[in-house]
Parts: sequence; structure tokens; C-alpha cells
Amino acid sequence: MKTELSSVAEQINHFLDTNRLTHISPDYLAEAVTHLVKNGGKRIRPALLCWFAQTLGASIDKLLPIAAATEIYHTWTLVHDDIVDNDDTRRGKPATHTHLKNYAVDHFGTDNNFGVNMGILTGDLQQAWVNKLVLNGLQTGCKAETILAILDRINSYLTPKLIDGEATDVEFESREPKNVEEVIQMMGNKTGILLEFCAQTGVLLAKDGSNYSDSDVTEAGNFARNCGLAFQLQDDILGIFADESKLGKPVGSDLCCGKQTVLMLKTKALASEKDIDFLNSLTAKELLNSEELSKAQRIIEECGALKEVQTMAQQFSNSAMESLQNFPKNQYRDYLEQFCHYMTNREK
Amino acid sequence: MKTELSSVAEQINHFLDTNRLTHISPDYLAEAVTHLVKNGGKRIRPALLCWFAQTLGASIDKLLPIAAATEIYHTWTLVHDDIVDNDDTRRGKPATHTHLKNYAVDHFGTDNNFGVNMGILTGDLQQAWVNKLVLNGLQTGCKAETILAILDRINSYLTPKLIDGEATDVEFESREPKNVEEVIQMMGNKTGILLEFCAQTGVLLAKDGSNYSDSDVTEAGNFARNCGLAFQLQDDILGIFADESKLGKPVGSDLCCGKQTVLMLKTKALASEKDIDFLNSLTAKELLNSEELSKAQRIIEECGALKEVQTMAQQFSNSAMESLQNFPKNQYRDYLEQFCHYMTNREK
Repeated sequence: MKTELSSVAEQINHFLDTNRLTHISPDYLAEAVTHLVKNGGKRIRPALLCWFAQTLGASIDKLLPIAAATEIYHTWTLVHDDIVDNDDTRRGKPATHTHLKNYAVDHFGTDNNFGVNMGILTGDLQQAWVNKLVLNGLQTGCKAETILAILDRINSYLTPKLIDGEATDVEFESREPKNVEEVIQMMGNKTGILLEFCAQTGVLLAKDGSNYSDSDVTEAGNFARNCGLAFQLQDDILGIFADESKLGKPVGSDLCCGKQTVLMLKTKALASEKDIDFLNSLTAKELLNSEELSKAQRIIEECGALKEVQTMAQQFSNSAMESLQNFPKNQYRDYLEQFCHYMTNREK
Repeated sequence: MKTELSSVAEQINHFLDTNRLTHISPDYLAEAVTHLVKNGGKRIRPALLCWFAQTLGASIDKLLPIAAATEIYHTWTLVHDDIVDNDDTRRGKPATHTHLKNYAVDHFGTDNNFGVNMGILTGDLQQAWVNKLVLNGLQTGCKAETILAILDRINSYLTPKLIDGEATDVEFESREPKNVEEVIQMMGNKTGILLEFCAQTGVLLAKDGSNYSDSDVTEAGNFARNCGLAFQLQDDILGIFADESKLGKPVGSDLCCGKQTVLMLKTKALASEKDIDFLNSLTAKELLNSEELSKAQRIIEECGALKEVQTMAQQFSNSAMESLQNFPKNQYRDYLEQFCHYMTNREK
């Protein structure tokens, strides 16, 4: 799967390089629009779209514009999300608004909010680029009816749902989630919905269809959504139980910032009051020492929360695999099965 | 014309009310998406689209979705622009991000940048709504080919050009414009390009066309662009010479904030060094007293800059009227002529 993923990534990168959004000026905006795209990313969204279409016999040449559009869609949401979350780095490098801020300091001697302001406009341009890339599908043999259905899905379903997820995540900094279901719904919208869209659109393109309610389209969407949820739950677990050398950020940082994950909500429902008080006391810290981390891990494990969340993740993963049942058995279905396995069992 | 404009506005408002973007949640985002739309605005962009299509015999029912899309397009650019420019009010009421900030203070007891963050997401939703509204044209008898051409124009031409204008305007706070032409190009992109798009798209829709290079489409675009430029120059003049009771903001405020208008660039090219020093000294003030304002007005008038800019505005207006020559003479062409007259000669 990893070799195939690299191959898709290479083709997407080439397509994006040769299908830039035109008419962008000044130069620093044109450059900012591709900044994050060039700073890595595994292109799993385009791969998901391609593999679902390819299980059903579609050729990748036809798919490239729409697959590339999903990567830029992911990109614009990250660019605006990094502004909203005030995150200065992304993929280990300056976030787009930080990159633009550095440009302003170098060229005008001052930032004066230029980085954030131009970062907003950069995301806007990328959102337009998404729609343009989808329209490029007309040149690779996609039917006009299919293209119109994809544009409709993006603009009247994907975007409102994804932004719902982003806004609710921001809200969770100001209020407690009502329950575990609300957190799962938020994750399903914030990250699951784009994965769902990619899988669904792959099937739609392979069938030259225009109906997102088609049963194969729906099953593909369920697969991707469930993989996404399994991934997120695993991510919460790794944030507290991972090997520090593999995580790429301090283990336990979710505890310090009081992130309201499913794992923590489950722990707060199951642990003793004294243990919860201890966990709450950690939110005031910058970093945990190894004793604090060990104690927190023990509480989360011994109250049964860890096991419950592991079981939930496994259930999402099982549901995902069931959704593949009716797709033809071939190498692309193998990649999808491996994708599901990777999303649920990764170690970092 | 004003009666007809009100009639178009009423139909657009009704169409927007009954064709909201669905799936938006939380409620404050759904509400924010229509906040600015409900706070007034004359709907001149939809009217421009309708009148050009109607001169060529199109029926307004067919046009409403796309005409409504131009109003929402205008809206999303204002929502993000008010964040970029840090403007707290728009149309005499709280800007969208201010409205959201007030919501956060009321409901969470703190803003914590919630207003700006949700304002960014609100503009993103509106940008999606634009594309959705254009797609709605398929239900009112617009050809798929025309809809695809309009979506292409929006996403690969209108948005990059308009954002170029916005970014360059922001840059002018950090650097001097190179010359008058650069300011005119900025204005043409920031405000002219959407007017141009509206006029062009009206003709395209009337002809069921898909080619923005068609000569009638081009002429309609020239009309609108030139009206927009005449309007902007007139706006610069009114900012310094208007009757305060009609302007709605302090006369001379452009002088205090050192706004780099064509009128001021011309003045700086023509006036004496001593007079320019005086004008530059005003940029440090909050408000001008009547003596300072009178002296500034006298300098701008006596050096010949006022006359030059009035002549430029008249030339743009004349060019606009010439572009109407080949359109059929009927009531809608009359409205367009009156529109041009209004844009060039308005007093506030």
C-alpha cells in the first residue's frame, strides 16, 4: 500500500504543479497558495478517491483533477484552521499565515497582522481552486452531470458539515461537550466528512453517476467515515500512551491542555473523584514529568476507559471492513483494507 | 430606475430567504451567514446582471439564482474584508465578526477571538453558498454549459482578480503605490471586477452562452468596469468635498488616515512642496477642523487635481455609455444608462 500511496502522491503533485490557479497576484499570494501543499502530506484523501474508483475499473487519468481537488480542499481547511486555532506550525514547518508573517517582516519591516490577513485570503483562493480543479474533470472524460453533482456536494454538504465540526471543536474550548456522542459527531464532521466525500466521489466517478444516495456510494462513504473515527480514537490513545520518539510531540500534552477527547470523557465517567481531581490538576502544567504521566496512564487504564475506547475503535474498524464486502476483490480493495488497518493500528 | 431596483431587490431577498445554504450548524453560524445580507444593501450587482440579460429579452425568473449568487459573492468578500481591514461596522451596524464577538460575550462570557474566527468560517460558508446558488440555475432553465462556464469564471478569474485587488489595497498601507495606474488597477480589481462579472454574466445567460470572450459579453463588462471606476473616483472626491450631512462619515477622514486615493496622488504630483507638507501633517490627526478642511480643499482644487480627477471620472463614464451602443433600446437599457449616471454623479 505504501508504494501505491507514493505513486498516487507523485501523480497528484505533478497534476497540481501543472494545474495551478491562474491570475493570482501579488507573487507572495501565488506562492502562499502552494506553500502548505509543498510542505508534505501523504495525499491519503486523493488515494482513497482513486482506490475506490479503481476497484470499480476506473482509470487514474480520469480521476486526477478531482483527486487533486480533495487535497486542495484539505489544504484550505488547514490554512484557515491554523489561523482559527492560532497554530504557528504545520507539518513541522511554518503554517501558511506564519510564512506570510515572515514575508511581511522581511519585506515591509513589520507584520501588522499581514500574515493572518493574507492567510485568510490564501485559504479563499484555495477554496476557489478546489472548484476549478473539479471543473477540470470535464477535460479528462468525466460527465458534466457528474461534475455538477460533485460541485453541489462540496458546496451544499461537505463545506457546511466540515465547518460545523470546526466550529464545534472551537466551542469545546469554552464549554464541556454534552456527551461522548457529541465529540464523535464533531470528529465525524471535522475530519470524517472529507474522507467520506473522497470515497463516495471515487465510486460516483467510476459509475459516471450523479447520485450520492446510490448504495455503493453510501457504503464507500461509511467505510471512510468509520476509518476516520477509528483513526481519531487511536490518535487520542497515542497522545497519552505512545512512545515519545514516535509521536512527534510530548506524550501527554493533551492532558496539559485539557483536550476533551472521548478517552478523557470516558475516564471522567469511570474514574474516582480523587483520580479525576488529579487529572484536572494536570491541565495547569506546561509539561508532565514521567511520574505524573505514569500515574495518569494508570488511572485511564485501570478505570476501564482505555479498554472501552480501544473497543470502540475496533468496532469502527470492523464496520469499515464490512462496508467493503460488496466491492470486487482486487488489488485496489486490498489497498483499501490495508488503509483501514493502517488507520486503526498505526503507532504514530 | 430606483423603483425597478427596489423590485429586483425584493425578488432577490425573497429568493435568498427561500434558498438558504442547508446543513449549517451551530445556529449562530447559520444566523451569521445571513447577518450582513439582512442589514441592507441596494442589490445593485444583481440588478446589473438582470438588466443586461433583460435588455436581450431574458426573463427574470431564469436569472434569479445567479443574480442572488452575485449578492452573496459581494457579501462574503465584505465579511472577510471587514476582518482584514479591522472594520467593526458595516452599513451602520455591527460587521459580521463584531456580531459574532457580541454573541460570544453574551453566551460564553468572553470573546477570545471567537468573533474573528467564526467570521472567517462564515465567509467560507458564504463562498460555498455562491457556488450552490449558481448551481440552482439548472432548475430555472439555464443550460448546464452556461452554469459550468459561470462557475469556471468565478473560481478561476473573478476570485483571484478580486483578491489581488484586496491584497494590493492592504499593501498600500505599507508602501506607496507606484503610480496612478496602479491605484486604478487595484480599484478595478477590488470593486470593478465583480461589477464586470455581473454585467458579463447577464449577457451570457440571455444568450445561453458559455464564452466570456463573446463581444457583447465583453462590452457589457467594459460598461460595468468603467462605471465602477467612475464611482470610485467620485467616491474619493466626495470623501473630501461632500456635504457632511450626506456623506455618513466625517468629511476629510481620508486625509486623516492618509488614504492613497487617485485624487491625493494627483495632488501630490501637482501641488507645491509646502502644500504637500501641510496635507501630510493632517495624517496624524483624528479629525479635521473646518479651517484645516477648507485649506486642504483649496489646495486640491487650486493645483488642478480636482479638475483632473473629475475629467477622468467623466471619461470612464463616457466609455461606459459607449459600450451600451450595440444593445437594443428598451426600458432595461434605460435603467443601465441611469445606473451609469447614478454611479458617476451621486452625491453620497
